[in-house]
Order: sequence, then structure tokens, then C-alpha cells
Amino acid sequence: MSMIHTAEILCVGTELLLGDIVNTNAAFLSQQLAELGIAVYRHTVVGDNPARLEAALCAALRDADLVITSGGLGPTYDDLTKETVAAHFGRSMYMDEHSLSRIEAYFHRTGRVMTDNNRKQAMMPVGACVFDNDYGTAPALALCDETKNKTAIMLPGPPSELIPLFRDKVLPYLQERRETVIESRNVYLFGIGESALETRLGTLLQDAVNPSVAPYCKEGEVRLRVTARAADSQTALSMCDGMIDRLMGEVGEYIYGVDVGDLEHAVIDSLHRTGLTLACAESCTGGLIAKRLTDVPGGSDVFLGGCVTYTNEIKKRLLGVREDTLCRYSAVSEQTAREMAEGVRARLGADVGVATTGIAGPGGGTEQIPVGTVYVAISTKDGTEVRHLSLSPNRSRTYIRHVAASHAFDMILQYEKKQK
Amino acid sequence: MSMIHTAEILCVGTELLLGDIVNTNAAFLSQQLAELGIAVYRHTVVGDNPARLEAALCAALRDADLVITSGGLGPTYDDLTKETVAAHFGRSMYMDEHSLSRIEAYFHRTGRVMTDNNRKQAMMPVGACVFDNDYGTAPALALCDETKNKTAIMLPGPPSELIPLFRDKVLPYLQERRETVIESRNVYLFGIGESALETRLGTLLQDAVNPSVAPYCKEGEVRLRVTARAADSQTALSMCDGMIDRLMGEVGEYIYGVDVGDLEHAVIDSLHRTGLTLACAESCTGGLIAKRLTDVPGGSDVFLGGCVTYTNEIKKRLLGVREDTLCRYSAVSEQTAREMAEGVRARLGADVGVATTGIAGPGGGTEQIPVGTVYVAISTKDGTEVRHLSLSPNRSRTYIRHVAASHAFDMILQYEKKQK
Repeated sequence: MSMIHTAEILCVGTELLLGDIVNTNAAFLSQQLAELGIAVYRHTVVGDNPARLEAALCAALRDADLVITSGGLGPTYDDLTKETVAAHFGRSMYMDEHSLSRIEAYFHRTGRVMTDNNRKQAMMPVGACVFDNDYGTAPALALCDETKNKTAIMLPGPPSELIPLFRDKVLPYLQERRETVIESRNVYLFGIGESALETRLGTLLQDAVNPSVAPYCKEGEVRLRVTARAADSQTALSMCDGMIDRLMGEVGEYIYGVDVGDLEHAVIDSLHRTGLTLACAESCTGGLIAKRLTDVPGGSDVFLGGCVTYTNEIKKRLLGVREDTLCRYSAVSEQTAREMAEGVRARLGADVGVATTGIAGPGGGTEQIPVGTVYVAISTKDGTEVRHLSLSPNRSRTYIRHVAASHAFDMILQYEKKQK
Repeated sequence: MSMIHTAEILCVGTELLLGDIVNTNAAFLSQQLAELGIAVYRHTVVGDNPARLEAALCAALRDADLVITSGGLGPTYDDLTKETVAAHFGRSMYMDEHSLSRIEAYFHRTGRVMTDNNRKQAMMPVGACVFDNDYGTAPALALCDETKNKTAIMLPGPPSELIPLFRDKVLPYLQERRETVIESRNVYLFGIGESALETRLGTLLQDAVNPSVAPYCKEGEVRLRVTARAADSQTALSMCDGMIDRLMGEVGEYIYGVDVGDLEHAVIDSLHRTGLTLACAESCTGGLIAKRLTDVPGGSDVFLGGCVTYTNEIKKRLLGVREDTLCRYSAVSEQTAREMAEGVRARLGADVGVATTGIAGPGGGTEQIPVGTVYVAISTKDGTEVRHLSLSPNRSRTYIRHVAASHAFDMILQYEKKQK
């Protein structure tokens, strides 16, 4: 059996080119192929147009061993993926009675009327390996030219069909055709930018080949993806672990977790370990800290809740911030942040209280307190600490709020570290 | 000036080919180009690999008038989009002092250390039209070969930079190069599903050509995009308005706004009009209502704040929910939702109080109270009303929380309607 090393993903659908839907299939298939150790060289999206599909198919099968298509298997006149691929492989079409009876049964079961064009979905290229679709009407299929080592796998477009079909049927088909395994682990950093990180790591990023280390930046954070290729999964994972140890030695102070997903998961995990409870008081983040913490299921034993205190009056009423503090220092000040964190900790009876107050913009900034100014406070039995952020006033409101919340999470994690 | 009729979108980034991120940029750019009346023929994604980028660029500029790239403008060694496009257009690179001083100022302002590789971001191909980036360090740029009518526009990869750069800088650049004007208006509906809406509207959706009407569904909402093409903007907009009047006649009771963006903007706008103030008490939405309301800038005069009461103890302490109510009816009940809304309204001194309590999943459901059960309450001077939602337990936590918050917004809007 011929081996598959490289792949291209070819998505068919005018709705993708109009931007009506986001191409999540390409990301899903890429992840799956990466896990199989098959390198994806290109994604292409074309409309429901046979000439452009044929051109894209030619390019794909010239450059890669495998092309996976999504879309264009439906019953309508403009669904032409199967026919185009069959012509490219020089295969004629036949009526696959097994698929036809399954489609008939599907319509019978769902009580819908089967139209003539649904029969088209049971037409197959000669020699195709047909994968039954338990989630819709269009079967998936693979077509292989063994002499040229070229394979085409065709999947229906809706993710609700494509994902289970891939997992249940295509994965076993492909697993027989791989030589090596690729494993990845993700190292999460906060408090260092991408350029500064590269400077700190010197040539490590370029020099690392197997395992490789790739940086991804997102809203004030960096993730380093460590990827190793080996004959088996265990070897690949231990190669990853070796590199992670090296990264811990180089930039460990910024690393808040490995494979944790994000800061909010790291915070909830850490609180579960120490058993401390948390409450938050939010002005400029306006509920975002609580929202991100409650995105994580099962955190209600450690995250008690919090107060969104958007006005001065409510800061006084719910948190006990003093009138005098607000008058002398203003709502956006170290002193107010401090009293908010202490207030929410006391009033909710939590071990840890965090608070934010600042100017998220786009309006509301002054020369003294420009947009991007945020005070983030943490109050614990050991006292209260306040971090002053000066984020760029050109950053979006969304970015400023997100990064302010992330700093609150970072301060919790730093405190938790000291507890262990 | 040469006219642009066709485009290709070329996204650069190994993280896309690994499936680490979903290509939302391609969908965003496609939508924007569709609105401009520029046909998108293909999306291509390649990794950070100059040879493959050059091949994709050749194919794109062979088939289309315009290529828009995203990604590969960063400071690191593998960011090569600008250099590859410059070579393709036969242009040398120069140090753009204006961009350099902006990048220096950016680092100065944000208090970060500028490293040598950041200087690379200020290198520009000769003849480029540079678009200042107010949201990050990499400027965007356009390069045009007037004799061949080929244009390349290069944008940074992060959506937080790409989206505002496109809207503020690239859109005006492209608008000068179109022959007809396309205008769109968006009609927002809540409380009706896409199929039910199609049934109500009969053949209107298929029959409407200019203006056309396209439905987009998202997390319990439907948006109808009305698009008209005409010689000038005013004519196109008045064609849209005629269609909107027709839609108001057909399904007006579900329409909560035109061009309002989303429910949270509609709520803040509406509160500004009536002058009523709002407070919220959140259990299962855990801060999401407050977060969505404070995503809207300038709402602090009408949205006072709220309480995230994730535990029973905090529901009693912050909102005055009675022990007896929690024992007799449980935290997820009409009675608890009612007391939460009344409590937050009274304690924060707001005109309107809203509250949510429910099971967002994936765990925590029982036979009596399955995942997807949510009570949403509104308390006003006219009394308290509770809505009982039974969302499908197969829906994600994110979906259930989002839709629960949306119902709270809908209840506020329904109440506000009666005030006018």
C-alpha cells in the first residue's frame, strides 16, 4: 500500500467565498492530519464551479500525495466534486445500490420526501472506497491511484457530518498509511511579548527542528507549540518533554502552564489545587473576569462570584469604597483598586479578591489618565498588591479589557505559586 | 486608475495549516469584498515558506486583479510576505522612516523594549502605499502595477489589527476603484428561527434580487442582510429602505433593530432613549450579561453594574435571596430568578433589574432540571416577569449562556417598547 506524506485541503462552496460561513473544516482536517504526521501544504477554497475545481484539484494532486475535499457532494446541480474527481482519475460513474438503499432508508426514517436528484448522491466512481454517512445523505468516499500514489478523499461540507465521518471512517483508512507519529504540546506564557521572547531564546526557535518550537501570539500572550515526530507516540511525547524542560530553564518565570488551554483554566485548576476561594470586583472589565472564569465548567466551588461596579455610587454601595478615596484619587487609581479588591474579598468572604478599574476607551481618557490606564489589585490574607498597566491607547476596547482581565489572572497565579 | 473586478485571498501562516487557528480573516475579507461588488474566486492558505508563497502569489495574480494577503508581516525571520510580494512586483525594499518612527513611538508608549527585528517591519517595497497600523506594529500596504492592473494588499494576520485596518484604510482605497455602488443594511431579529422565518416570508427571500435579502443565523438570532446595487449610494440605500419596510410589515414583531449590530447595543441605545437604569444578577451566565453590556462603550450612565452570584451563599448575601426559597425551590427556579432580579434592582437602586439562573452544562443537570434549563427574570416598577427556557441539553455551554443572556436583553427591549 502506498504511503501518504503530504496533503492538501480543498474546500468547495460559494458560501465560503462570499464569507457567509467560516472555513472551520480546513482547521479541523489540518489538526487531524497533523496528528497523523501528514504535512498539510496548502488550503484552497473554490466556488461551485467545475473548471476552477478541476484546476485546483490538478494543482493539489501535483504537489501532494493526498487531497481531502469538503463540500459539493449534495443533491443539487451545482454539487460536482465527485464527478470532477472521477474525471480527473479517469473513472466512470456507477449507481452504488448499497448507498442508494441507505439514502432511501434515511428519507423513510426522517419522514421526508426523496426527490430524484437525491439518487445522484449514490452515484460513485468505479473503484471508490465508500464510507457510509450516518449523519446525512451524502456518503463520503476515497479514490486511490496506487501506481501514482495519489489519493482523493471526499467529504460532505456540513461539519456535523464531516467531523464524525472523518473520525469514524477516514481516520482508520489513513492510519494504515502512515510511517511516523507527530505529537504536540503547548507551553503558555504571560508577561512577555513575542519579540522579547525570541531575544531571550536566542536561536533556539530556528535551531529546534525535531522537536520544533513555534510561537503563537494572542492578545498579550504567547503560546509555544512544541512538536516532535517519531516512530511512536511515547517517543514523540518524551522528545516534547525534553524541550519543555529546556524552555522552563530559559523562560520558566513566564510559563503559566503546559497544555492548560488558557489563563482562566489555569486559574481554576490552581484554585482547585490550593482550595482557596476567589471573588472579583470589576469596573473597566465589566464582568469579563467573571465571564471568563465561568466559561470553565465546574468552577463554582472555588469561584464564588463578584460585583460589576460600573459607577462610583455602586462601588461605594456594593464594595464599601470610601467617598473620600473616590474624591481624592478618582475611580481610576491605585487606591480605588485596592479598596475594591479588599471590599469584595471581605463582603463575599473569599480567600482572594481581585479588582480592576481603568479606562478601556475609546472615549473617557484624559491627559492624566489616558485610555489604556488600568489598575489591577489582588487582596489576600498576606495583604494587597496593585499593578499599574499603561496599555496603548490605540488598542481596541476589547483588547484592553481582555489584557486587564489576563493580568488579574496572572496575579492570582503568581500568588498561588507562592502558596505551594 | 485601473478597476478591480476580481480578487483572491491569500493567507499566510503555518498555524493555519496546522489547524491551530481558524481562518476567520478569509471570511471577513470575503464579506467585505462582496459588499464592494468584487468577486472572490479563491482562498489559498500557505505556510511560512517563501517558495510556496511565491507560487500561490503567481497563481493569484494570474487569475485575479487583486490579491489580499494576511499574515507574514511580523518581526520574525519567517515573516516573508512583504519581501516575496516585492520580488514578484520587481521592487526593491527601503527603510520607511515614517513607519520606523511610528514603531519606535509604539514601543516607547507601551514601555516595551524594541528589538532589532522590529526594524524589519518598517522596510517597504518601493512605490508601496503604506497604511499606518494603529493597533499593532506591522504597517499594512498596497502595491500596484498599473500597467498590468494587478494589485496586492498586505495585511497583518491578527484579526484585531486586520479588521480595523481594512475598515479604516483599505476600504477607502478600494472604494475608489469600483464602478457601481453596493449598499447593505442589516435587519436584526430575535425570537424566531431561520426555518420559521423562511416559512413566514414565503418566497420573498428567493424572489428578492435587487435588493437581495440573505439570512444569517447565529446563536438564537437571525440577521437579514438587505443588499442593493445602484449607480450611487443614495439610490442603493433607498432601495434597501423599501425592502426593510416590507420586512417590517411581514415580521416586524421579531425585529429589534436595523444596523444596530447586536442585542447589547440595542439595549444600551434603548436605555439611553428612555433614561432608565439597569442592573443585573447573574448565576449561570456568570458575568456574560455585564460583559456584553460593557462591550458597548459609553453605557455607564444607564448600566450601573451587577452581581455575579455563583453560589447560594452569595445569592443570599449580595441579593437577599431567601434561604427558604433556595431550600424549597432550589437555586434553579422561577422563584430564585424572581428574587435575584428584585434584589439586584433594590440593592443597586436601578429602574430595571434582570437575573439569570440555570444549568449551562456540560455537567450539573438532573432529570428534573436538565442542562439547558434557564430562568430569566426582569423586575421593574410594574412588577416582575420570569421566562422559562428549555434549551437543548446537546447545546454547548457557550451557546446556552449566550442565548440566556440574549433572552435577558430581549426582555429589557420588550419592556422598553411598552414605555414609549
